[in-house]
Amino acid sequence: MPYYIGGLVDEVDSLIARSPAQFREQGIAVHTRHEVEAIDLGQREVAVRDLESGAARREGFDQLVIATGAEPLRPNLPGIDTAGVHGMAWMHDMLAVERDLQAREIANAAVIGGGYIGVEMAEAFDLLNIPTTLIHSRETVMSSLDPDMGELVNDALRAAGINLVTGARATAIDGRNGFVNAVKTEADSYLADIVVLGLGTRPRSQLAVAAGIPTGPTGGVIVDARMRTQVDGVWAAGDCTEMRHIVSGEPVSFALGTIANKQGRVCGVNLGGGDATFPGVLGTAITKFHDTEIARTGLSATELEGLGREFVTGRIESSTRSGYFEGSAKITVKLTAERESGRILGGQIVGGPGSGKRIDTIATAVASELTLLDLEYLDLSYAPPFSPVWDPVQIAARITNQQR
Amino acid sequence: MPYYIGGLVDEVDSLIARSPAQFREQGIAVHTRHEVEAIDLGQREVAVRDLESGAARREGFDQLVIATGAEPLRPNLPGIDTAGVHGMAWMHDMLAVERDLQAREIANAAVIGGGYIGVEMAEAFDLLNIPTTLIHSRETVMSSLDPDMGELVNDALRAAGINLVTGARATAIDGRNGFVNAVKTEADSYLADIVVLGLGTRPRSQLAVAAGIPTGPTGGVIVDARMRTQVDGVWAAGDCTEMRHIVSGEPVSFALGTIANKQGRVCGVNLGGGDATFPGVLGTAITKFHDTEIARTGLSATELEGLGREFVTGRIESSTRSGYFEGSAKITVKLTAERESGRILGGQIVGGPGSGKRIDTIATAVASELTLLDLEYLDLSYAPPFSPVWDPVQIAARITNQQR
Repeated sequence: MPYYIGGLVDEVDSLIARSPAQFREQGIAVHTRHEVEAIDLGQREVAVRDLESGAARREGFDQLVIATGAEPLRPNLPGIDTAGVHGMAWMHDMLAVERDLQAREIANAAVIGGGYIGVEMAEAFDLLNIPTTLIHSRETVMSSLDPDMGELVNDALRAAGINLVTGARATAIDGRNGFVNAVKTEADSYLADIVVLGLGTRPRSQLAVAAGIPTGPTGGVIVDARMRTQVDGVWAAGDCTEMRHIVSGEPVSFALGTIANKQGRVCGVNLGGGDATFPGVLGTAITKFHDTEIARTGLSATELEGLGREFVTGRIESSTRSGYFEGSAKITVKLTAERESGRILGGQIVGGPGSGKRIDTIATAVASELTLLDLEYLDLSYAPPFSPVWDPVQIAARITNQQR
Repeated sequence: MPYYIGGLVDEVDSLIARSPAQFREQGIAVHTRHEVEAIDLGQREVAVRDLESGAARREGFDQLVIATGAEPLRPNLPGIDTAGVHGMAWMHDMLAVERDLQAREIANAAVIGGGYIGVEMAEAFDLLNIPTTLIHSRETVMSSLDPDMGELVNDALRAAGINLVTGARATAIDGRNGFVNAVKTEADSYLADIVVLGLGTRPRSQLAVAAGIPTGPTGGVIVDARMRTQVDGVWAAGDCTEMRHIVSGEPVSFALGTIANKQGRVCGVNLGGGDATFPGVLGTAITKFHDTEIARTGLSATELEGLGREFVTGRIESSTRSGYFEGSAKITVKLTAERESGRILGGQIVGGPGSGKRIDTIATAVASELTLLDLEYLDLSYAPPFSPVWDPVQIAARITNQQR
């Protein structure tokens, strides 16, 4: 959605993976503008309200899949409901931002929250040449990165002219003539004619909770590897579920399309009588800010400290291509690994074009329980337009191994 | 070197990894323009000739490293020594081509051999707007790819206007006024004022053979994982050695900088009293022709047939980015896997910008003995500028798994 706003995606419809009509062609009845208000496990029914007519009805089920997704965090700030303050979770948020941009004079924008959505919205506003303030609670944005790596993203934001305000929280939204006019923090106030919230999400599991379907510490619906909840005949998949982190073994929650897709497929295969299992997640994620690519997988140093694990970490700077090849850009790679075994636990990448997708090599190594030494001598691809002779992830493996 | 000729690399000196002067600063005496004519294992000496003065001398050694590299295949064709016919193995080849391009009117170029060097030279001449004929003995170029994937490279060459002549061998070189003028095949003749040979290489192991140091079926010097030859105190590393293919277990020979670098490091660590091992190779390789990226790893279907292995293979077309994102390009991924276990044995990729480096994910999966199912559900990175929701390598894994 930020890419649509920024003009990098042309067609609204291209963002719709499958329409109700396409579902119907496959014999699947889709009821849009209907809300399930309760799940009656005893009667094996759901209570449904038609949001157009207001009529209530009940629908029976043999098997039920809960796929209610995630919902964005929306802080209870004074002025939060002022016109021009938007979330960025659903298509209607995106279209509302587009309408504002077309209908009103937008001299300044503000983004609250410097995670994936926040950074992508800062890029979108910057592409539209709107001076933008990004307000983030910690000292470095992209808080799933370690601070030393997040600092590189801070640098990229500032280099592009984003007014980056870190270590600060929005405390109020000011309006004028019925529209947002500024975002206040404890220390200051920032002019903004449009505001987008990018403060993260939580699993949307209230319906499950109300029905007595167990949820875990993350708030997500507890599912096994086949996507069964703890209630017979009830399944769940996607952002509303709690996931298992493959490296830490801990329950986690990620609202990411790639995970939701995989869980949906596993759920569907099993519902259809097949046998599929979802192995868990590594916390792999990727985004970009203009030409700066940002990616991470596995456990960061910050997360490993929190878990009390014995680990080593190393960070290197290299180039995306052979240094002498045109278009070669800087890439920074950081790895974490078990001190004792050298097993790779995670990786983070910030760099120019061609950097980000290298995270998949690290993700595959983490999932395969490779050691730093395994990665260092892996037969990865090399040619001057693609890589230095030693791929940057291999240089990082060597340097990190020297910390053991 | 092709990229220098094509203008994608500016500085000759940037291609020199380390100069004799830099070696000397580290206390290493480098003797250029000296040729070792024999290795005397009994006396622990090498016979050296100074190519400038012609003087011969002997140098003693306690430990000896043979790193004589590879030598290009040069067919014994009529006219092969005509001026304007060049190899592309050493810096002086590159400089000779550059001199020809500057000094003479080059209306047409020909490249003999459609492997990595051949395709890169076709790109270089095309970048210089020189009409180019590429002559290749098989029906599809890049013969380390299966024919169905090589066909995609054929298409890219033809689309760029390269006169691609497949299933043909050069039979003679014609000259006029002392310079090359045409390349003949059995069926035809192609005008060319400059010719580059890209017919592959073989390990340069004659010196080792003459000294009685064992070589293997590939012609490479036999080394163990620590880079020791079968003669005490004599080591070898790089293109002159025989390597073990990790998947097939067979002896193989590759002349690739990335392998040579890794072997050199292993050899140096062990010589210096450390302990390092080289795990073998997957045959990973990558190149490009203009915007078409080409990569492979592990065993192709052709290779697996040759080995008599039970395998399945699948091929898919997808996009490098989300289909709706600007700059999204077509990517074709082919995988091979063991029929019984589903273990991934190899992969091939041909596609637009962003395709090629995905081979590293497959290489890591092959080295880690992952199955197709493991790869399908791996937590790889997704965001619209980088990938569809399911990375193309994962779609390929799913489709290939359906062949089992």
